Amino acid sequence: MKKQVKTSLSARGRLARNLRLLRARYGLSQEALADLVDLHRTYVGSIERSERNVSLDNVEKLATALKIDICELLSESLTLDQNRVSG
Amino acid sequence: MKKQVKTSLSARGRLARNLRLLRARYGLSQEALADLVDLHRTYVGSIERSERNVSLDNVEKLATALKIDICELLSESLTLDQNRVSG
Repeated sequence: MKKQVKTSLSARGRLARNLRLLRARYGLSQEALADLVDLHRTYVGSIERSERNVSLDNVEKLATALKIDICELLSESLTLDQNRVSG
Repeated sequence: MKKQVKTSLSARGRLARNLRLLRARYGLSQEALADLVDLHRTYVGSIERSERNVSLDNVEKLATALKIDICELLSESLTLDQNRVSG
């Protein structure tokens, strides 16, 4: 199975895809992630559908919760490591 | 002279610093950059003072105008290449 996805996506598209990949990787529901960052589940859902023009502060919150650099969270090619998020 | 700056900055702080570095590098005024991205000069100024919680769409606009990947524009250590922006 490929760990890297290479496409030409907008920033919203990259964030949406990487968020979905990371959540799946760490077995987090949208609600669980939303709780971690003190946002609403539907807000996380709208980010993952590229509907939301997220603010930098919220992108940073998401990155911090997922223990990933903001730059990586917005990267074209996300590489998923084992055991990045514990618990 | 060092081309890399290594600090622990917030996402706003990284964007502010990298924007200032890139503008200086390419000899762009705040107004010239603002014109490129169809934003106001004072808006660019407030981003460079870390006052603004910029939206992802606007970060992307800035990155596109500066011919840099959004990930690099938000990177902790920005490496400046010669001749990235022409004109």
